[in-house]
Amino acid sequence: MSCFWSDIVHRLTPYFPGEQTESADVVKLNTNENPYGPSPRVFDALRAGIDDSLRLYPDPASTRLREAIARRHDVTPTQVFVGNGSDEVLAHTFRALLMQSAPVLFPDITYSFYPVYCKLFGAKYKEIPLGEAFQIDVDAYFQDNGGIIFPNPNAPTGRGLAVSEIERLLKSNTESVVVIDEAYVDFGCQSVVPLVHVYPQLLVTHTLSKSHALAGLRVGYAIGHPDLVAALDRVKNSFNSYPLDRLAQSAAIAAIEDREHLQATCGKIVASRTALGTALQDLGLEVLPSDANFVLVRHPERDAAELSARLRERNVIVRHFRKPPRIAPFIRVTVGTDAQCEELIAALRKILK
Amino acid sequence: MSCFWSDIVHRLTPYFPGEQTESADVVKLNTNENPYGPSPRVFDALRAGIDDSLRLYPDPASTRLREAIARRHDVTPTQVFVGNGSDEVLAHTFRALLMQSAPVLFPDITYSFYPVYCKLFGAKYKEIPLGEAFQIDVDAYFQDNGGIIFPNPNAPTGRGLAVSEIERLLKSNTESVVVIDEAYVDFGCQSVVPLVHVYPQLLVTHTLSKSHALAGLRVGYAIGHPDLVAALDRVKNSFNSYPLDRLAQSAAIAAIEDREHLQATCGKIVASRTALGTALQDLGLEVLPSDANFVLVRHPERDAAELSARLRERNVIVRHFRKPPRIAPFIRVTVGTDAQCEELIAALRKILK
Repeated sequence: MSCFWSDIVHRLTPYFPGEQTESADVVKLNTNENPYGPSPRVFDALRAGIDDSLRLYPDPASTRLREAIARRHDVTPTQVFVGNGSDEVLAHTFRALLMQSAPVLFPDITYSFYPVYCKLFGAKYKEIPLGEAFQIDVDAYFQDNGGIIFPNPNAPTGRGLAVSEIERLLKSNTESVVVIDEAYVDFGCQSVVPLVHVYPQLLVTHTLSKSHALAGLRVGYAIGHPDLVAALDRVKNSFNSYPLDRLAQSAAIAAIEDREHLQATCGKIVASRTALGTALQDLGLEVLPSDANFVLVRHPERDAAELSARLRERNVIVRHFRKPPRIAPFIRVTVGTDAQCEELIAALRKILK
Repeated sequence: MSCFWSDIVHRLTPYFPGEQTESADVVKLNTNENPYGPSPRVFDALRAGIDDSLRLYPDPASTRLREAIARRHDVTPTQVFVGNGSDEVLAHTFRALLMQSAPVLFPDITYSFYPVYCKLFGAKYKEIPLGEAFQIDVDAYFQDNGGIIFPNPNAPTGRGLAVSEIERLLKSNTESVVVIDEAYVDFGCQSVVPLVHVYPQLLVTHTLSKSHALAGLRVGYAIGHPDLVAALDRVKNSFNSYPLDRLAQSAAIAAIEDREHLQATCGKIVASRTALGTALQDLGLEVLPSDANFVLVRHPERDAAELSARLRERNVIVRHFRKPPRIAPFIRVTVGTDAQCEELIAALRKILK
């Protein structure tokens, strides 16, 4: 019956998310979830929202949530766009700002959803190779383009870029939009959100799925010049008026307002990352330096796909990317609790012995 | 800074949803929300979901929810697609199935989001005039097309169409997809879902926002041949892997499984609709026959925009559509509780006296 499909559907190569499982006896280190729960204030906000008001539509403009995000980042609500996870925010960004006559540029090794969006919207793109040490080399982006996007820190490498380097890019690239995807910024990078006041072409995206431990509630946002936000609003209001439900809006406000919980849990994860890196190196693995809540690692001799499969047999789930070829020898490991990290190390020790 | 916008953004005419207000002293009869709350089982499911599992991504395939919908409608889970409200389901439907070389057909008076989607995706469309009595005339759709879509009952008219008429359309229109948007079907129409087993070109969309009283949680779905669902899945997985959060998925299952609550509340609304219609006619208004949870009404002499504004002054919110011209003389009134309907009638009586 594919005779009924629109042409574009045949040409899509959908994104495949990491395995999701509800099994309690699994050490789940494959999708960069936060091992600690969200702020207790989130639970209070959710409980307060369970009543007959669920019969009513949510605020389509998510006004209170945008105000909370604006306070948090010292911007105005007109500089804030919210969506159903940063994936939806990014999708609208590609459509609203990155479909141009010149190709959008992003790293050859990066969030694998970027080329998927391009195929969905028919946007041209060009992949810019990472440097020898898997670093983003800003100079490589000084070329004709219809926009630039990369995560900082980058995924799945974990490598961060200094604000001064991003500012150097912004000073040189003034004619097209620069999107910095700060999904993992709270684990060790400095945010470029303050630069939105200086550079009208800068859009910064955030998610509550990682540092705020709310992957289960689907909230993401973008911050930039009001004219960039207006474009996102126009696309959103031509697609789905109410992407954020009532509970997600109020839970997100509670999460954003609890800065102490954020800092305490991110601090623990950063400490665990250091310990995990050392333990992995002690087992003979190479560990890329990471500013995120995951590490990209490889064993000098063992096949990464096989290593991943052997770990899965021992109920430890990590992520292996077959493409692009340069990261095929690596596995990506989310930083869990210290106990989860120890289970991973114990399993690896048995596999490698 | 609109120099940064993609071309398409300039050409959009976004959808404007009805006014949302949290004010408790307002009689809100403008966006067809259910005046009764959702099933109490929904509250139980939500409370059970408030824990640290919110740190984990939801099931991207919404497997348990699709199974519950499949049981409810006597289809298989492969025939079910779910999304963030039926608006998102419809958006993906336009992209996946209704972007064709021939124009998609829909009524000239119908859900005003349909032409918005077409502009977003660049899909051609042709509006087919409703008949004299605002009825959908199936014969008018027997022409070359790239798909057909209309709600049953239609909105904002409230008029329903017999299953036999839709089947007549399906028998004649076998080369393109026919989408029946059953957002309001539980208030008085017969569903055509059983016909998906016979007609591979039929897709039926539902929402939990109306009869299930969950507008605040954003869940909608589509039922059709697995090949149609596969097209929707491909588009969804190129846009946002996880559109339904954990709480929305479990609440939706609870709502769908409580058939008694659905029937009891819909029964009350249907009874109130009859009483409201009579009371409005007693005030001299013309009331279109409705199979939905709203009525479209006009006063023979009073301007509808002014009537709507005067009601708003009295804290009663109804919906007035300026376009298309044929419905500009009407206001659309959601069927509320009997008490809310009486407040509307009392306000109208004062305005009209």
